Amino acid sequence: MAETTPNSWDARAAASSFYGFTDLPTIEERGTVVLTHGTGPYVVDTEGRQYLDSNSGLWNMVAGFDHPGLTAAAKAQYDRFPGYHAFFGRMSDQTVMLSEKLIEVSPFETGRVFYTNSGSEANDTLVKMLWFLWASEGQPQRRKILTRKNAYHGVTAVSASMTGKPYNSVFGLPLEGFIHLTCPHYWREGQEGESEAQFTQRMAEELEEVIAREGAETIAGFFAEPVMGAGGVIPPSDCYFQAIQPILQRHGIPLISDEVITGFGRTGSVWGCDSYGFKPDAIISSKCLTAGFFPMGAVILGEALSDRMQRAARAIEEFPHGFTASGHPVGCAVALKAIETILEGEGGNPPLIDSVRALIPRFEAGLARLSEHPHIGEWRGRGLMGALEAVADKETKTPFAGHLSVSERIANACTDQGLICRPLGQAIVLCPPFILTEAQMDEMFAKLEAALDGVFAQAA
Amino acid sequence: MAETTPNSWDARAAASSFYGFTDLPTIEERGTVVLTHGTGPYVVDTEGRQYLDSNSGLWNMVAGFDHPGLTAAAKAQYDRFPGYHAFFGRMSDQTVMLSEKLIEVSPFETGRVFYTNSGSEANDTLVKMLWFLWASEGQPQRRKILTRKNAYHGVTAVSASMTGKPYNSVFGLPLEGFIHLTCPHYWREGQEGESEAQFTQRMAEELEEVIAREGAETIAGFFAEPVMGAGGVIPPSDCYFQAIQPILQRHGIPLISDEVITGFGRTGSVWGCDSYGFKPDAIISSKCLTAGFFPMGAVILGEALSDRMQRAARAIEEFPHGFTASGHPVGCAVALKAIETILEGEGGNPPLIDSVRALIPRFEAGLARLSEHPHIGEWRGRGLMGALEAVADKETKTPFAGHLSVSERIANACTDQGLICRPLGQAIVLCPPFILTEAQMDEMFAKLEAALDGVFAQAA
Repeated sequence: MAETTPNSWDARAAASSFYGFTDLPTIEERGTVVLTHGTGPYVVDTEGRQYLDSNSGLWNMVAGFDHPGLTAAAKAQYDRFPGYHAFFGRMSDQTVMLSEKLIEVSPFETGRVFYTNSGSEANDTLVKMLWFLWASEGQPQRRKILTRKNAYHGVTAVSASMTGKPYNSVFGLPLEGFIHLTCPHYWREGQEGESEAQFTQRMAEELEEVIAREGAETIAGFFAEPVMGAGGVIPPSDCYFQAIQPILQRHGIPLISDEVITGFGRTGSVWGCDSYGFKPDAIISSKCLTAGFFPMGAVILGEALSDRMQRAARAIEEFPHGFTASGHPVGCAVALKAIETILEGEGGNPPLIDSVRALIPRFEAGLARLSEHPHIGEWRGRGLMGALEAVADKETKTPFAGHLSVSERIANACTDQGLICRPLGQAIVLCPPFILTEAQMDEMFAKLEAALDGVFAQAA
Repeated sequence: MAETTPNSWDARAAASSFYGFTDLPTIEERGTVVLTHGTGPYVVDTEGRQYLDSNSGLWNMVAGFDHPGLTAAAKAQYDRFPGYHAFFGRMSDQTVMLSEKLIEVSPFETGRVFYTNSGSEANDTLVKMLWFLWASEGQPQRRKILTRKNAYHGVTAVSASMTGKPYNSVFGLPLEGFIHLTCPHYWREGQEGESEAQFTQRMAEELEEVIAREGAETIAGFFAEPVMGAGGVIPPSDCYFQAIQPILQRHGIPLISDEVITGFGRTGSVWGCDSYGFKPDAIISSKCLTAGFFPMGAVILGEALSDRMQRAARAIEEFPHGFTASGHPVGCAVALKAIETILEGEGGNPPLIDSVRALIPRFEAGLARLSEHPHIGEWRGRGLMGALEAVADKETKTPFAGHLSVSERIANACTDQGLICRPLGQAIVLCPPFILTEAQMDEMFAKLEAALDGVFAQAA
C-alpha cells in the first residue's frame, strides 16, 4: 500500500468520507483505494495499480469502464439537453423513447414506466404504489410486504426493511409489517434427506402458512429477486417460482420481480424471470439499465397493475410522488444506448448478451473446478453471476469461525494480486463484466485460485 | 396544443408513462409537453415552442439548460472514468475531491460526507443514521422525527413521512413517529392581534410542549428547510431559528438543515442557514449541488455528529448502508464544476451567486408590484425564490374555492404564453435560474401579470 501522508489520497479520503458498506478496520490497516480511470474490465488507482474488477463495479458496469458507445451517447445528450424532470406533464423526448423501449423489451404487452434514481428508490416507490393502490381499491389494511431472508432490495428505510439481512437491526429495522420467508437455498436450508423437489414444496407450504397466519387481506405484495444477489448469489431451488406463483395468484398478491441485478442479461436472458420461466406483475430495474453510466431505477408495471394504478391515480387526479431527476434526459439517452449495446449490438459489435451466453460454460467450468477445493462447500450461480462458499468442513458444511474473516482475507489477497472480487458472508462472489475475454476470465480464476490456496493454507 | 395522433409525442408519452406530480385531467385536456432541448433559461418542445422556465426545471437547473462549463466537465469525466461506486474502501478521485470541497464550503470546520442520488435518499439516510446513532449510544427509543406542516423532505416512505403535506394520506403515511409542528408562516398562521415576535415565541412554546409531551428521550432529530420550498416558498417568521435552536440543544436533539433547495446560492448566501444566522448539526444537499446536470444528494455531517457517527460505525466495524451510485465519479466532477460556477466563477465569468445577489432587488420589486393586485394576498420569499398567494378576498385572506383551480389556470395561461411557472396550493411560485438577465426577468413578470389579469377577471 502507498504510504499515508497528510496529503495522500488515502488520508484525504479518510478525513472527509463517511464510509458505507466498508470494513473500517480494513481501511485503517490497508487504506482507501482511490481510483482514477478504467480500461475495459480493469480499473486503475492513483498509484497506477491495475485491478481486474470481477464485480463489474457493483454488478452494473457490464460494458466495462470506458465503453465508447455509452460515453458518446452521454456526451451527445449533454450537448443536447443536459437535465430536466418529469413532473407537471412535461418530460424530455429521451424519457418518452426509453419508456416505449422498456415496455417493448419487457415481458409485458402493455404497461407503464416510472423512473427513480436507484433500485432502492424503485422498490420504495413500488411499495408506496401498492399501499396507494390497495387503499384506493377499498383495502387499506393490505400493507404487509413479503420478501425472503437474504434478499437484498436496497437501503432506504423501507427497502432495507424488505432486505432480509441481520445487519439492518442496527437501525431498528425492519419496520413493522415486513415479513421475511425462508431463503430458498437448497444446499444450506435443505433438511437431512429432503430432496430438492420436497424442499421447494416446503417453501410453498411455508408461504401458504404465512398467508393464512397473517391473512391475505393484510398482504400488499411479494418481492423477489430471481437470483438473490447481495445475499450471496443464491439461485432459487428447482421450480420455486412455479410453486409459489399460483399461491400468490390465488390470494390476489402481486409478484414483483426485483431485477436490479438480473435485468438486462446477467443470467443469460433479458430478465431473470425469463431464465426461471415466470411472468411477474411488475419489474424493478436499475444497474445494467444504464450499465452503471448514470444513476437510474425504473418501476415497470405490467398490464394489470398498470391499468389498476392508472385508474386509482385518475380517481384522485394526481399521483403525488416523483423524484427531481426521475426520467433525466441524459440517464434516458444512456439507458437507450445500454439496452442497444446489451440486447441489439452497437458500433458494429454483436449484442453483449451473446457474449454472456458464450462465456457461461467457461464461467461455470471455472467455478466447478475451484469448488473441488476441500474448503469450498459449493459453487452456485446462474449466467455470469456465481459464488464459491468457503467452509471449514465440506462434509458437514460447517462454516469457518467468523473471527477468521476468511472471505475478507481471500478478497484482500486477490486485491494484492490485482483482482477485485467480493466477499459476501463466507462466499466469494464473481459477477464479471459482459465484455470479458476468455483470457481475462482465465486470469480471474487463476488469481482467485492462488488467493484461495494461500488463505486456506493459513486458516485450515 | 398539437394534435394527438397515435404516433404523436403526446400519445407516445401517455401510452407508456406512469405520471407523478402531474394533474391527470390537465394532461388529458392539454397533452404532455415533450421537450427536446434548452437555451439559457429557456426550454423548447417538440413543436418548437419555447418556454422561459421560471422553475429552473425543478429548482435545480440554476445555470440554465446548456451551460458550457458544466457540459464540458461532464463530458471530460465520461472520457476519464464514467462510473464507479464508493463501497468496500474504494472510490474515485473525484469523490474524494468533492467531499473535501463540500466540507470546505460548509459551515463546518471538519465533517464527513455521505453521497446519495437524491434529496429523498439523503433525508432517508440521515434518519437511518440517527436511528443507528442513538441506538449505538444506548438510547434505541430515540426514533421520533420532528418536522413542520408544509415541509417537503422527499418521497421515499420515510422522507414522505417527514413531508407535512396532506396528500401523503393516500399512501397511509406518515408512518408512526413522524410529528409535524405548526408551519411558521406568520401571514397564514398568525392569530388576530398577534405580533410576528409573539408568533415566533408561540412556535417555540409549541416545540417545548411537543418535546415535553413526547419525551425528549424519544426524539431522534428535528429537520427543517430554512425556507420551505415545495410547501409554497415559506420563509420562517422573524428569529424563528434563534427561538427554536436553544430548545433543541437543551434536549440534545440534532437540528438538520434540509438545504436541497436553499443550498448553493438560492437565498443569496451559500446556505439558507447562513441567510437565517444559524449553524445546524448536519446539512442535506441536492439539486443545485450539480445544477441539475446529474442526480446527486449528500448528507454533510457537522463536527459533532460526524465524530459521534464515526465512533458508532467503528464499534460495529461497518456502517451497512450505501447506494450503488453513491459518489459516482461523473456526478462528483459535475458537482465540483457546479460549486465552482456558483461560488467562484468559471470560464472567466463571475460567480453565479453574485448574479443572484444583483438580481434580488429587481425580483423582490417585481413580486411586490404584482402583490398589489386585489387578488394577491401576499408576496413572500427570500433571495431568488418567491411566491404570490392568490386570494378571493385580500382583507380576510379567504382563498378561492378549490374547484376553481385558480393557480393551475394561472400556470396554464402562462404556459400558453411561453412561461413555465409553478402552482403550489393557491400560490404561484417563481424560482428562476441564476443566469437570468434583467430583460428575461422583466419578461417573466410581464407574462405572469398578463396571466393573472386574465384568470382573475374570469374567476372573480
